[in-house]
Amino acid sequence: MTFVSLTASYTDSSDDETSPREKTQVNSRGSTDFCVKNIKQAEFGRREIEIAEQDMSALISLRKRAQSEKPLAGAKIVGCTHITAQTAVLIETLVALGAQCRWTACNIYSTQNEVAAALSDSGVAVFAWKGESEDDFWWCIDQCVNTEGWQPNMILDDGGDLTHWMYKKYPNVFKKIRGIVEESVTGVHRLYQLSKAGKLCVPAMNVNDSVTKQKFDNLYCCRESILDGLKRTTDVMFGGKQVVVCGYGEVGKGCCAALKALGAIVYVTEIDPICALQACMDGFRVVKLNEVIRQVDVIITCTGNKNVVTRDQLDRMKNGSIVCNMGHSNTEIDVASLRTTELTWERVRSQVDHIIWPDGKRVILLAEGRLLNLSCSTVPTFVLSITATTQALALIELYNAPEGRYKQDVYLLPKKMDEYVASLHLTTFDAHLTELTDDQAKYLGLNKNGPFKPNYYR
Amino acid sequence: MTFVSLTASYTDSSDDETSPREKTQVNSRGSTDFCVKNIKQAEFGRREIEIAEQDMSALISLRKRAQSEKPLAGAKIVGCTHITAQTAVLIETLVALGAQCRWTACNIYSTQNEVAAALSDSGVAVFAWKGESEDDFWWCIDQCVNTEGWQPNMILDDGGDLTHWMYKKYPNVFKKIRGIVEESVTGVHRLYQLSKAGKLCVPAMNVNDSVTKQKFDNLYCCRESILDGLKRTTDVMFGGKQVVVCGYGEVGKGCCAALKALGAIVYVTEIDPICALQACMDGFRVVKLNEVIRQVDVIITCTGNKNVVTRDQLDRMKNGSIVCNMGHSNTEIDVASLRTTELTWERVRSQVDHIIWPDGKRVILLAEGRLLNLSCSTVPTFVLSITATTQALALIELYNAPEGRYKQDVYLLPKKMDEYVASLHLTTFDAHLTELTDDQAKYLGLNKNGPFKPNYYR
Amino acid sequence: MTFVSLTASYTDSSDDETSPREKTQVNSRGSTDFCVKNIKQAEFGRREIEIAEQDMSALISLRKRAQSEKPLAGAKIVGCTHITAQTAVLIETLVALGAQCRWTACNIYSTQNEVAAALSDSGVAVFAWKGESEDDFWWCIDQCVNTEGWQPNMILDDGGDLTHWMYKKYPNVFKKIRGIVEESVTGVHRLYQLSKAGKLCVPAMNVNDSVTKQKFDNLYCCRESILDGLKRTTDVMFGGKQVVVCGYGEVGKGCCAALKALGAIVYVTEIDPICALQACMDGFRVVKLNEVIRQVDVIITCTGNKNVVTRDQLDRMKNGSIVCNMGHSNTEIDVASLRTTELTWERVRSQVDHIIWPDGKRVILLAEGRLLNLSCSTVPTFVLSITATTQALALIELYNAPEGRYKQDVYLLPKKMDEYVASLHLTTFDAHLTELTDDQAKYLGLNKNGPFKPNYYR
Amino acid sequence: MTFVSLTASYTDSSDDETSPREKTQVNSRGSTDFCVKNIKQAEFGRREIEIAEQDMSALISLRKRAQSEKPLAGAKIVGCTHITAQTAVLIETLVALGAQCRWTACNIYSTQNEVAAALSDSGVAVFAWKGESEDDFWWCIDQCVNTEGWQPNMILDDGGDLTHWMYKKYPNVFKKIRGIVEESVTGVHRLYQLSKAGKLCVPAMNVNDSVTKQKFDNLYCCRESILDGLKRTTDVMFGGKQVVVCGYGEVGKGCCAALKALGAIVYVTEIDPICALQACMDGFRVVKLNEVIRQVDVIITCTGNKNVVTRDQLDRMKNGSIVCNMGHSNTEIDVASLRTTELTWERVRSQVDHIIWPDGKRVILLAEGRLLNLSCSTVPTFVLSITATTQALALIELYNAPEGRYKQDVYLLPKKMDEYVASLHLTTFDAHLTELTDDQAKYLGLNKNGPFKPNYYR
Repeated sequence: MTFVSLTASYTDSSDDETSPREKTQVNSRGSTDFCVKNIKQAEFGRREIEIAEQDMSALISLRKRAQSEKPLAGAKIVGCTHITAQTAVLIETLVALGAQCRWTACNIYSTQNEVAAALSDSGVAVFAWKGESEDDFWWCIDQCVNTEGWQPNMILDDGGDLTHWMYKKYPNVFKKIRGIVEESVTGVHRLYQLSKAGKLCVPAMNVNDSVTKQKFDNLYCCRESILDGLKRTTDVMFGGKQVVVCGYGEVGKGCCAALKALGAIVYVTEIDPICALQACMDGFRVVKLNEVIRQVDVIITCTGNKNVVTRDQLDRMKNGSIVCNMGHSNTEIDVASLRTTELTWERVRSQVDHIIWPDGKRVILLAEGRLLNLSCSTVPTFVLSITATTQALALIELYNAPEGRYKQDVYLLPKKMDEYVASLHLTTFDAHLTELTDDQAKYLGLNKNGPFKPNYYR
Repeated sequence: MTFVSLTASYTDSSDDETSPREKTQVNSRGSTDFCVKNIKQAEFGRREIEIAEQDMSALISLRKRAQSEKPLAGAKIVGCTHITAQTAVLIETLVALGAQCRWTACNIYSTQNEVAAALSDSGVAVFAWKGESEDDFWWCIDQCVNTEGWQPNMILDDGGDLTHWMYKKYPNVFKKIRGIVEESVTGVHRLYQLSKAGKLCVPAMNVNDSVTKQKFDNLYCCRESILDGLKRTTDVMFGGKQVVVCGYGEVGKGCCAALKALGAIVYVTEIDPICALQACMDGFRVVKLNEVIRQVDVIITCTGNKNVVTRDQLDRMKNGSIVCNMGHSNTEIDVASLRTTELTWERVRSQVDHIIWPDGKRVILLAEGRLLNLSCSTVPTFVLSITATTQALALIELYNAPEGRYKQDVYLLPKKMDEYVASLHLTTFDAHLTELTDDQAKYLGLNKNGPFKPNYYR
Repeated sequence: MTFVSLTASYTDSSDDETSPREKTQVNSRGSTDFCVKNIKQAEFGRREIEIAEQDMSALISLRKRAQSEKPLAGAKIVGCTHITAQTAVLIETLVALGAQCRWTACNIYSTQNEVAAALSDSGVAVFAWKGESEDDFWWCIDQCVNTEGWQPNMILDDGGDLTHWMYKKYPNVFKKIRGIVEESVTGVHRLYQLSKAGKLCVPAMNVNDSVTKQKFDNLYCCRESILDGLKRTTDVMFGGKQVVVCGYGEVGKGCCAALKALGAIVYVTEIDPICALQACMDGFRVVKLNEVIRQVDVIITCTGNKNVVTRDQLDRMKNGSIVCNMGHSNTEIDVASLRTTELTWERVRSQVDHIIWPDGKRVILLAEGRLLNLSCSTVPTFVLSITATTQALALIELYNAPEGRYKQDVYLLPKKMDEYVASLHLTTFDAHLTELTDDQAKYLGLNKNGPFKPNYYR
Repeated sequence: MTFVSLTASYTDSSDDETSPREKTQVNSRGSTDFCVKNIKQAEFGRREIEIAEQDMSALISLRKRAQSEKPLAGAKIVGCTHITAQTAVLIETLVALGAQCRWTACNIYSTQNEVAAALSDSGVAVFAWKGESEDDFWWCIDQCVNTEGWQPNMILDDGGDLTHWMYKKYPNVFKKIRGIVEESVTGVHRLYQLSKAGKLCVPAMNVNDSVTKQKFDNLYCCRESILDGLKRTTDVMFGGKQVVVCGYGEVGKGCCAALKALGAIVYVTEIDPICALQACMDGFRVVKLNEVIRQVDVIITCTGNKNVVTRDQLDRMKNGSIVCNMGHSNTEIDVASLRTTELTWERVRSQVDHIIWPDGKRVILLAEGRLLNLSCSTVPTFVLSITATTQALALIELYNAPEGRYKQDVYLLPKKMDEYVASLHLTTFDAHLTELTDDQAKYLGLNKNGPFKPNYYR
C-alpha cells in the first residue's frame, strides 16, 4: 500500500512567530508536559500518522503481535530522532508495547509540527518544532532527559547528541541506562570511540550496520530517488544523457542502475579497484573525472569523500550541465569555491541554482551540494519501516536481555533479528517463504527458523 | 543541455482580476495590437524563452542556417497552439525566417502568461491568456484572423479550431491560404474528414504522423514521464510493486519498460494479439484485468479506449492501490461511476484524490483520470523541439513548394524531411552519423543524402 | 514447450557416396516417387518431426481446427523451401488439410536428410538431399513440377527459384497456378519485378513483410541468437566488453539490447538519422566506426550494406578482437581483403578463424563473415512456427479466395490474418487476450474480432 | 582479449588404451619424471596455454613485474588442481617467480591431456591424465609428494585431498610446510575443522572467501553461463518463458538477472527472508515452488540444499519443461527418484535426457542434475584469471611472510591483496582508477594505496 500524505498544512505560513518556549499549551488530556509549535494541529498530524501506518504494516504487525505481552513494560525511553509521521508510528508502537516515552528532535529543521502536536496530544512528551535555534535544540534535549520524577532507562538516538548530553550532564542517570539504540553513522562512530576509550558504561546496539538497513536503505533508496530528485528539480530528460557517477558503492550502484535503465550513458569513477571491477562487469566505463568532464551532462557524487568535484573541474563542465550530490555530506562538490565574485548565482527554483560564468556558461547546482534525495525527493515509507522495526526490536532485545548477555560495548543486531525484520516486510509483497524440511535443515546444519546466514554475510 | 525554468512567477496569484479584453496595454514598441494578461511580465517571459532555447538547439540551428535566406519572407502565418516557452521559440524562429505571425491559444488553460507577454512585447500579435472563457477563446481566434490590412496565407494549427473557424467564417480568406500545418490527432482527423467530403481547398501537412513524432513522443516521453508522474503525486516506491498496464502500444511499451527497469512486476492487458505477443516476448504476462485486479498495487491505462477500468473493478481493487491514465483522454477509467454518495472523495494533494469506500478502503485516483503526464509531470523540452522543428519545416515546404506539388489534400511529411529533423537533433547527443560511400549508395540503391528508408517504414 | 532434437545421426558420415539420383529406393508404402539420401533414415527423421511439433503448437492447432473442413482439398502444391523438421510440420499440416504436395529444397546444403526420408516415407514426394550439386538442384525442382499426371495449382516458394523455373520452362502450367506464397526478401523482390514488368499472371502473397514475421523474426531472433552465436564460437565473456554494432535496424536493436543486458558497453554506427536518434535515446553512443575501431573488443555488422568493415579497419583492430556479421549477406565485412599472403589464417574451431597479422596480432573472424546466427547458433522453433503458420494461412486464403479478390499482383497478408497467426501463438505463453465490449468496439470504430490496427501499422 | 581454444584434438579418441602408469615416456629435455597420457601432445597443449595467456593478462603482468625479484626462489610447491590451460598459466608463473613445482589433478576427469603434456615437456613434473581410476588418483598425489630428494615447502590445493594425504601419510614432511593455499569450499571447510581440532600445524590461506572470488565467480560467472548452458543443450527461446529460480544468493541473483534481461518471466523461491526481500525489490515474485510448478517452463536450482525439487514436483511439471541445477552439487534435484521403471529415459544429446512419463509427458533433465555451467557451458578465462592471480599472491605472501605474521590457523586474504588482484584485472577493460589526493586520504583516514574498505566489507 502506498498512501500519500496530506500536505495542505505544510504551506501554512500563517503560524504566529512566538517561540513555542514562550507559549503555554494544554493538550486534550489536560497535560502541559510538552513543547510543540501548535497543539491545535494535532488532528491534522493524526491523519498523517494514520497514512504512514498504511505503509508500515510490518511495524504495525509487530505492535499487534506483542502488545498483549508488553515487552517494554517499565521501559522509560528518551528518544532523539527526526520527528515525522514515520517516527510517530515507531513511538506509538513503543508505547503500545508498554514503554513511557519522552522525545526530542535530532535536527532543527526536520520536525513535522503537526505530527509533534498529534504525539503530544496523545500523551507523549514531545519537545520539538521546525526551526529551532541551537539553544532551543539543547533545551529540548534537556527537557526530555531531566524532569522531576523521570528516570529514563533506555535511549533511542540518531546522531548521538542526546547520548552525549546525558553522558556529560547527567552521568549518574546515564550509568543506569540499560541500553542505547543508535541509528546513524555518526552516532555509531561516537559510540565506538567512547567504547575504545573505555568510557561506554552501557550496552549499545548499532542498528546502522544491520544488513536490512545497509542493503536496502542505500541501494534501493538511491535507485528509487535519483531519478525523482533530478526530475523534480530540473525536468531533465534521461534518454541519451551522458552521466558520470563518482563512486560505485551501494549508493553509486543504485544511481547507476536507475540511470542506465532509463537510457542514460553512465561513466563511473572509483578509487577502489574492487568496486571499479564490479563497475566494469556491470557495463560501465571506469574513467577519471577529467577524462569526461567536458562531455558529460550530469555529475553525481556518491563517495563520502571531499572535493571530488573541484572548482577547476566545474570550470570545464559544459553549458547547461548539472552537478549534484547523493553522498553523505555536502563536501563532495567544492561548492565554496563557486562563491566568488566572478560567478553569478541565480536561484531558479527551490533547491536549484544556476551558476553563471563570465562567458555566459551555466552550470546547474542542486541543493547547494547537499544530499539530493533528502533535499529534493522523498524516501519511501516502506524503507523507513525497515529501520523503525529494527529500532523497536533492538530496544526490546536490550531491555529484556538477561544480565550479562550484553556487556558495556557496541553490538550489531543479531542476524536472526535482522532476518525477522525482513520477514515482517515480506507480506507487503505477498511473498511466500519456503520452509526447510527437517531433513534439509539437518543437511545444511541450520535451525529451521534461522538464522540462515553467518553473521558476516552481506 | 537541460535548463530549468524560472518558476517563481507561476505561483503569483496577485494578478488583478480584470479581463485582458477590458484592459488597454501598450508594448515597449508602442503597439497595442495584442491582448495578454499583463504586458509587464514580458521580461520574465523573455528569460523563460531563453531557457527553452537552450534545449531546442536543433530549432535554433535551423534558424541560424536559414535566416539569411528568409524562406518565409512574405508568409503571413496565423497560429493556434499551446503558448509556452517552447512554442515561443518556434514562433520567433518563423519570424527570423521572414514570416509575420499572429497567434492564439488552442487551450483555455495552457497559456503561460509571461511568455505571451514577452512575445507581444517583441512584436508578435498574441491574443491569449490563462483562464480564458469559451467566449474569450473564439474572440482571440477571431482577432488573429480578422484584422484590417491582414491577409493570412499560412495556418499552423493544433486541434483544428482555428482552421475550422476560418473555413466557416471567412471562406474567402481560407481559400487563399497556401498551406495548413496541423499537429494533433483530432485536427488531422478533421482535415481528413474535410478532404473526404471534398471540401478541403488547401493543401495540408499532417505532422502528427511523422516518424520522429510518433516514435519519440509516445515511447520515450512516456518512458520518461510515467515514473515522474507517479512519484510526484504519490511518492510510491517502485521496487516489488505489482502493476498492470492496460494496452501495449507505444505508450504502454514506454510505461512497461520504465517500470520493469525500476523493479516493478508488470502485467499487461491487450485486445490486439500482435501487441500481446510482443508483450510476451518482452517478458510481461498478458492477463485479463479481472485476473489481477485484487492483487495489483497500480493500474495504468494506455488504450485510447473507454471504460477500461470499470466501477466493478474499482470496487475490487485493494486498499491503498493507485489508478491512473496515460492514454489519450479521460474516458479510460470510469471516473464518473465513482461520484456516488456512498464513496467519499478526499483531495490529499493537487491532482491526488483518495476515494474512500464505506469499509474504509482507499483507492488513490490521479488527475481525476486525465492524462497523468500532462497533469502531474513534465515533458522534455527536447521532444517538444522535435515537433516544433517539424512544424517549421512543414511550413517552409508548403510555402515554397512549386505550384502543383501539393494538391488540395492531406500529406504526410516527406521521409527526407523527417530524417532531416532527426539529424538536427543528433548534435545534442554528440552523435556522429556514418556517411555512405558512393559505392555503398549504389549497392543499396540509395541517394547518399537519404531518404534511407521507404515511406511506410516505421 | 521446448524440445531438443536428437542429433546423434547428424555426425553420421558413414553414408555411402553414391548420388541419390543413381539409387533405387522404395518407401514403406511401396512408392519410388521421391529422391532422398537414404529412405532408411525415416524413423529417425520421424522422431525429429515429432519433437518439432511440440514447439509448433500453433500450427498443430490450426491443423486440428481445419482438418475436418479440408480447406486445401484439391490443392496440388509444389514447394521449394529449406527441408527441416519445422518445414515437415508445415508440409504435413498442408496434407492434413487436404493438399497433395511435391517438395524440393531451396538450398543445396540445408536439407536434413532424415527429415526428407521421413516425409518421403509418409507419402510426400520429396526431391532433396544435403550436398546437392547445382545440376542436382535444378533436377530436383524439375522432378517436383514436371511429372506425369500432375498439374500443380499452388506454389510455396522461398527464394523464387521454383517460381522462375516454372515461369520459364512450363509457362502453360504456370498460368494455371491459383496462387504463389513467397517468403524471402529475394523472392518477393523478384515477384515485384515480374509484376512491374506486367508478366506476373498469378496472384502472389508476400509473407515476408507480414508484421509477425518482420517484428518477431528480426528483433527477437537476433536478441536470442547473438549471445549464443558468440558464446558457442568464442566463449567470450560479455561483462565489460566494448562492442560496436553497425546498424540499428531491427537486427541491430535486438543485438544491442541483448549485449547491453549482459553487461557489454555498446556503441552504434548508423547512416539513417532516425535510427541514430533512437539509438541515442536507448542509451547507446552513436559513433563512426573509425572513432572506436582501436578500442572495441567485438564488431557486429547488421546493415545489409557492403564493405562496412574494411581491410583498413581490420588492420587497426586490437589483438584478440572478434568480428562477425548478423546482417543479410556475407558482404558486410570485407573478408576477401583478408585473403592475402601477408596474413595467416588459422582455423581454430568450426566456423572460427584466427587471422594473424605479421606482428602476431590476431583477429577472430566468425563464419567467414557469413550470417552468425544461421551458421553458429540456432533459431527458436517457436519463431519458425510463426512463419510456417503464416504460410499455411496464405495458401488457404489464396486457394479459397473468391474469383476476383486477388488480381495478378503481389499482396501483403491481410492484417486480420496476421493477427490470427499471432493469436494462435499466444497459448504457448498462457496469455489471455481481453475482448472488446460492444460498446467499446463501437467507440473505437472496430470490429470486435479485429483487425485492430490499420494495415500500415508496424 | 578473448581467444578461443583449439579443440581439434579433444575429439581424438584414437589414443591407445594403455595406462600411462605402464608407459615409459621421455620429454624433450630427457626427463622421465612425470606421468601423462601422451607426451607427444605437448605442442598442441603449448598452443592452448598460449591462447589462455591472452585472456590472463593480469597474471602475466604479475609474472613480468616479479620475475626479476624471484619472490618464490627456493619454494618447492606441490599442487593439486584441475589441470587446464588456465592452471598451466598459473604454474608457469610460479616457476617464473622462482618456484619448483610438482603437480597432480584434483579430479579424475578434468585433466586436459595436451596441457599436462606441455607442462611435463617444459619441466614441471605432472602426474595426471583424463580418466584416472581411484587408485591412479592417489598414486599420482603420492608421486607428487614423495620422491627422492624432494622436500616440498608449500601446498596449493583444491579440495584438500593433497593436504590430507600429506597430513596423514607424511606428517613429518607436512610439519615443515610453510603455507597452504586452498581454493575450494570443501577444502577450506576441512582446514577449519583441522584448525578447530587443534591439528593444523601450518598456516593456511583461504582464497575461496576473498571478495574478488566470491563476488565475481558466483554472480558474474552465473550471469554469463546460465543462458549459454541452456541454449547449448536445449536451444530454448528465452522470450516469454516462465522460469523459477530456487535460491536468491549470488548464483541465483546472476541467473535471475540474465534471464530477466532476455525476456523471461522469473519467479524466485527462498528460505532466507533477507534474500527474499532483495528478490522482491529486484522485481521478482517470491513464491513456493508448489505454487508455480504446474506453469513454469524451466526450473533452475541454486540453493546448495538437497531435494529442492522432489519427485512429487517433477510429476507435476508440464510437458516439455526443463529442469537443471546451478548449485554446488547434484543433490538439489532428486534425480535418483526418477530412476524407476515406470519412467523412460531417452538421451537426446550429450548431457540432455528426456524423462518420459507413462502418459507421454516429457521433462528435460540437464546434466543429470549436476552443475549445468561446468557440464554444459564454459567459464570465462578472465574469471579464472582472478582466482589464479589470487592463488599466486597468496603463495608469495605465505612464503615470504616474516616469522610470526601467520600462526597455525586459516587466514583470509588480506584486503589489500584482494584489491591488488582487482587492480591487475582493470587493464583488460582499459579502466582508469582515480587516486586519492593527500588531503582526501587524510579526510577519509585511508592510506592512498589502500586498503580502501574494512576487512568485513562485501
